[in-house]
Amino acid sequence: MNPLRANGERLWQSLMNLAAIGATPKGGVRRITLTELDRQGRDRFAAWAKEAGMSVRVDAIGNMFARRAGADDSLPPVMTGSHLDTQPSGGKFDGAYGVMAGLEVVRRLNDLGMRTRAPIEVAAWTNEEGSRFVPTMMGSGVYAGVYEAEKMLLQKDVDGVSVGEALKAIGYQGEAKPIKVGAYFEAHIEQGPVLENTGTTIGAVQGALGQRWFDVVILGQDSHAGPTPMELRKDALLAASKLVVEVNRVARTYPDNARATVGHLRVSPNSRNVVPGRVDMTLDVRNAKDETLLAMVEDLKKCAAAIAAECKVGVEVREVLYFAPSHFDPRLIDSVRESAKALGLTCREIVSGAAHDAVYMARIAPTAMVFVPCEGGLSHNELENARPDEIAAGCSVLLNAMLAAAGVAQESSGQARAA
Amino acid sequence: MNPLRANGERLWQSLMNLAAIGATPKGGVRRITLTELDRQGRDRFAAWAKEAGMSVRVDAIGNMFARRAGADDSLPPVMTGSHLDTQPSGGKFDGAYGVMAGLEVVRRLNDLGMRTRAPIEVAAWTNEEGSRFVPTMMGSGVYAGVYEAEKMLLQKDVDGVSVGEALKAIGYQGEAKPIKVGAYFEAHIEQGPVLENTGTTIGAVQGALGQRWFDVVILGQDSHAGPTPMELRKDALLAASKLVVEVNRVARTYPDNARATVGHLRVSPNSRNVVPGRVDMTLDVRNAKDETLLAMVEDLKKCAAAIAAECKVGVEVREVLYFAPSHFDPRLIDSVRESAKALGLTCREIVSGAAHDAVYMARIAPTAMVFVPCEGGLSHNELENARPDEIAAGCSVLLNAMLAAAGVAQESSGQARAA
Repeated sequence: MNPLRANGERLWQSLMNLAAIGATPKGGVRRITLTELDRQGRDRFAAWAKEAGMSVRVDAIGNMFARRAGADDSLPPVMTGSHLDTQPSGGKFDGAYGVMAGLEVVRRLNDLGMRTRAPIEVAAWTNEEGSRFVPTMMGSGVYAGVYEAEKMLLQKDVDGVSVGEALKAIGYQGEAKPIKVGAYFEAHIEQGPVLENTGTTIGAVQGALGQRWFDVVILGQDSHAGPTPMELRKDALLAASKLVVEVNRVARTYPDNARATVGHLRVSPNSRNVVPGRVDMTLDVRNAKDETLLAMVEDLKKCAAAIAAECKVGVEVREVLYFAPSHFDPRLIDSVRESAKALGLTCREIVSGAAHDAVYMARIAPTAMVFVPCEGGLSHNELENARPDEIAAGCSVLLNAMLAAAGVAQESSGQARAA
Repeated sequence: MNPLRANGERLWQSLMNLAAIGATPKGGVRRITLTELDRQGRDRFAAWAKEAGMSVRVDAIGNMFARRAGADDSLPPVMTGSHLDTQPSGGKFDGAYGVMAGLEVVRRLNDLGMRTRAPIEVAAWTNEEGSRFVPTMMGSGVYAGVYEAEKMLLQKDVDGVSVGEALKAIGYQGEAKPIKVGAYFEAHIEQGPVLENTGTTIGAVQGALGQRWFDVVILGQDSHAGPTPMELRKDALLAASKLVVEVNRVARTYPDNARATVGHLRVSPNSRNVVPGRVDMTLDVRNAKDETLLAMVEDLKKCAAAIAAECKVGVEVREVLYFAPSHFDPRLIDSVRESAKALGLTCREIVSGAAHDAVYMARIAPTAMVFVPCEGGLSHNELENARPDEIAAGCSVLLNAMLAAAGVAQESSGQARAA
């Protein structure tokens, strides 16, 4: 069978149309979860899904599922999706792309008059970003049984509004129960620079890195920069700096997509002519393999202890998050790779450095993701951008991979137009 | 002649009495320059000086000079002093010690009925701290001709109040003109740990370190901590950390009391899972010799350029302050050392890491300083502390050194009581 191609222009227009809801002056989107703007985004998605002949149901945590019936509608659906909420200063593509690409898959099947054996569903997960309510990936987490809906409904934002209250206020608390999912796909911008840097259009995502996050406190002693000789100092910033250098060295030493980052660092008293007595910093360590992740952490703890002794400071390292590495389904990953090949697209294996709704879905269903490049690897930023041809290419890969998973029930006369 | 000894108990009581003006709950002092509390401190000093038989004059920038006539009152005075203003969270000793020690010198001479050949003056310099109005050491700077009084009177605080307005409001703008000074001494707590760490009571200060201050901006690129491989990062914090490590290495490599400090560092966007795209930091480099100071700076600039290339970031280094090394008067330094020896006190040569009013006075008069230890080297802090016996010892050294400089005109019968 010749591969199908998505209608890239229609997909792009839907993305831009959706991006108008919460558009920011700099070209980004601010559509925070469970706000009035989120309601508008959800309403538009529901309207488009219904126009495409789909039924829409909503569950207790506000996840939306648009369904296109299969020839055998009793089969578990082949699902795709992502999220419609954005970061406070977010872009047009993070999340929205995965939902709109799912919609385009259905629209294209409609164009062609194609029926799939299994039903197709497009999900819009609630609160993936976690910027208003923690934790992140709340909706898919509830669906996958990681979190209990009842508890999540009680989570509050900084103004004391609960998830349950916010859901009711926008009219998106439903009663649909979770169903078994046959396969789950998610299209997403890479949010990193690898595809762009290697001139690759499609990333066949193998899984997501495991993560361990730490808070680090370094306690030295404030002293005057002038009168205090170097050998009598207990400089917390010197110790912190040595640790930052080690964090980067360790990440470059280990295999399995090792990454380690100090993103946040605060100096006290932070005055030009005072040797710093205290530094608070974070440490984010990631690896594709659990055992390598642990080895990195052990190595870094030894570095921290050695630096503490050398700089005569105290160092406390406290773990605040652990997120196991996840592995996607080999058969579905193959299907993504084969779809890209059939479409004549460059494709490479890639590991997702960030977590996505697909990471939770992988716990309950065979799962794969399709990455496309984003400009400069930039995301969570109003300047987030992607090329229309690559956005379309990712959707075409999604279309063919989903079709392979769902099976084709009957081919229409429209098939000829697909090539 | 047997050395004289100050009345340590009286000196300590005066210090504690003065510290009640602006006392903070933690035992410190907040007596910011040219405020109502500064007025109260000045009034108390003036009252005590008059009780001790001294005349008090005030100049255009608010510097106070309490004068004890000499046998030959036409001789240039032997002057001592320091400042009565404090940091916002200051201590009881920084500045106040030098003024109260000067007062005790006069009180002790009165006890003994001793006349000096040259007059004795005790100065209280305006705005040494610079925490309300910049620059620091404003009063002594004007006296030494470093700054013009007219310009300094226009300097404003954050509320828009000028030095001139503040001086008038507290009634301390006078008309006294600068006079030639025969010798200048200043007693001060060390504000560093050297004397305490070496078990020494008296520091015979050789001069003050030269200083060069810089603002450093490091520009990399924000990126996601998860999806961005180590080799594709432009991590501004990694570059900054490498520079902090080099700053400390360079300071330990160079001779002549080399010191270098990064006291302030700000990370952007400073988010746990974002590779930092920008760091703003300061650099404070000090050395006793001008040529060594310059060599350190050149070395550090080379380090910064190498780090910029290695980390693929931009580094800008901009000089914001230069303060030449100062050298005190060898004869007066000898006199301090000899006074300490005669009193049976341990004494060592020391270089002041910080600037003091004495640094400006050294430009127009032979100058020396007497340092005494402070607890843990702590200063500019409410917990600043010093031992009464060491406070007294420093004052006794000051007394004998000033007496040597001023000359004794006649000895009273009280002399026998001095030993």
